[in-house]
Parts: sequence; structure tokens; C-alpha cells
Amino acid sequence: MEDGHSKGSIINGMEGVESKESRDIMMVPKPASSTATCDLLLRVLALILTLVATIVLGVDKQTKLVSVQIVDTLPPLKVHATAQWHYLSAFVYFVVANAIACAYAAMSILLSKVKGLGTMISIVDALMVALLFSCNGATTAVGVIGYQGNSHLRWNKVCNVFGKFCNQVAVSIVLSLLGSIVFLLLLVLKLHRRT
Amino acid sequence: MEDGHSKGSIINGMEGVESKESRDIMMVPKPASSTATCDLLLRVLALILTLVATIVLGVDKQTKLVSVQIVDTLPPLKVHATAQWHYLSAFVYFVVANAIACAYAAMSILLSKVKGLGTMISIVDALMVALLFSCNGATTAVGVIGYQGNSHLRWNKVCNVFGKFCNQVAVSIVLSLLGSIVFLLLLVLKLHRRT
Repeated sequence: MEDGHSKGSIINGMEGVESKESRDIMMVPKPASSTATCDLLLRVLALILTLVATIVLGVDKQTKLVSVQIVDTLPPLKVHATAQWHYLSAFVYFVVANAIACAYAAMSILLSKVKGLGTMISIVDALMVALLFSCNGATTAVGVIGYQGNSHLRWNKVCNVFGKFCNQVAVSIVLSLLGSIVFLLLLVLKLHRRT
Repeated sequence: MEDGHSKGSIINGMEGVESKESRDIMMVPKPASSTATCDLLLRVLALILTLVATIVLGVDKQTKLVSVQIVDTLPPLKVHATAQWHYLSAFVYFVVANAIACAYAAMSILLSKVKGLGTMISIVDALMVALLFSCNGATTAVGVIGYQGNSHLRWNKVCNVFGKFCNQVAVSIVLSLLGSIVFLLLLVLKLHRRT
């Protein structure tokens, strides 16, 4: 810096040459632009993942003919039983949380172009990590009981009957988990960038 | 800035006065030290909250005399039923996650004094937010079914029998939630500080 400054004073008359050099320096792509592109791509990925996760669980429904034994002396009755996503509060929370994260991802793509909102966006990113990981935890916990049942609490497994329904829940959890990892990555990149 | 620079050039001979001024400025406490204290206090708080949450759920156990009807023609049998935290995988995950967060909080208090580890600590803080919120979600989802049951899946509520056990789970969830909010706050402060 000291050298550059003295040089600047010495070649005071050669303004044309100096400004050409400055232009050359300006032409070198800044690392900031590549991180901005990376940030944008991650936000688009988060948007897609949370959107698909919301839809996959939001349309999850399976109807099956199951036999129910009401009276021992009579043959079992065949009834139509339906499994729907809104029967469990954890699944409702999952759909709402992913919808919020999806809407925010779309909004953050637009807002990331506005100067001075970087910190605010990162803070909301951190809130999205918390929201998405909590809904993933809730849905996975209920899903595990659905798959395995729990003999201690006498909660029977339901995935042996509603296999398609459970598989759709599993796909949705994986998508949402990937979405929340993307939000976590956005946060890590932000922290790393500011070192 | 321009004014300050010109003044600096004009009073070039008054070096003594200028350096006294600089010393005065140096004496003003830096905001960095107050944020470091705040950071330390939050880490101690996170340590205590996750430690107590781990212990409260880790020692949770309730034995009750419940009546079980095995054969209709005979009177119901009285048996001792026990509810323990490790009967549910979500509760095991909760205890392990809180123990990890507690150990990390202790470690980060020591490591925060080491220069150059700030970003690494913040990244692990973000991972702790994800870990703790997912375990809170899992435990709350199972807790809600324990309190209310689910008629669609024929999962009976258990908290009407094991009331003390369930209350202890609720206390543990609140403590862990506060702990995870403290980790989130550490992250938000870090992002805000670097604006």
C-alpha cells in the first residue's frame, strides 16, 4: 500500500496509464459474485425441495379395505379405512412449516438483490433451520412409531396396512431434510464468508 | 473523513496532543468485550439448560398399579406397569442430543478464548440449533400423542395413567427448547455483530 501510494505520487502526470490499470483490476471477477450465484442456486434448491415436500405430504391419502372383528361369533366386517395426512398434528405441522419455508425461500430470492438486507435474511435463514428441523424431527418420530409400533404403550404399527401412505411420508421427510440442510448450508456459507 | 485527514496534516507538529487523544479513544471500552461477555453468559445458560433437560428426562420413570382385564369372566388383574424414558426412540434421541449439546456448550466456553476459532464455533452452534430443534420436535410430537391419543390410529393416550412421567417430559421439553433458543440467539448475535 505504501509503495502504491508513493508510486501514485510519482506518476501523478500519467493519469491515463494509471486509470487503465485500475480498469484492468476492475475486470477481474470478484469472489463476491460467485458466492452470490451459489447463494441464489441454494435458495432455488431450497424452494424446490420444500415445495415438493409440502405437496408430497399434502396430497398423501390412502384408502384400504380392512377387516374388523366386532362380535366374536360373527365373521369380520370389511370396511373402508382411510389414512390422511391431517389425522396427525405432527404431519399438519410438517406441511405448514414446509409451506412457510418454501414461501420464504421464494421471497428471499427477490430480497437478496436488495442491498443492506443480508444480515436480516441470514437471521431468517437461521429461523428456517430451526423450524424445518423441528418439523422433520416431529414427523420422523411419529413415522418411526407408525413403522415399528410400540409394545410398551400398545401403539400398533400402521405401516403394514397403509404401506403407500407411509412411503409417501418417508419421501416427504427426506425431501424436507434435504431442504433444511440447504438452509443450514446457506447459513454456514454466510458465517464462513465473513471470516 | 476528509476533514479529519486535513486536520491531521495541519497539526502535524502537535504529535503529543494527538497521541493523548488516541490513548483516550483506546480507553473507551470496546463493544467487542461486552459481546464476548454476553456470548459467554449465553453459553453458560445453554450448558445449564441442556444439562438439566438431559437429567430431567434421563431419570424419568414411573411405576403404577394398573388393572388389566385378561378374561371377561374373571375380575381384572392388578399389575405393576412402568413407564421409562428409553421405551421411546424419540426420548432416547432427546437425551443423547441434549447431552451432546451440553458437552459442546462446555467445550465452546473453553474454545471461545482461542483466537481464530470464532467461525468454526458459530458453524457448530448452527449444527446444535438443528440437532436440538429436531429432538424437541420429535419429543413434542410423541408427547402430544401421549397426552391426547389418536383415535384414527387407535393409539391410546397414556398420560392419564402416567401423569407424573408426562409432566416430567413436558418440563424437559421446555428446558431443551429454551436451550435451543439460546443457541439460536448466539447465532443471531454472531450474524448481527458482523454486519
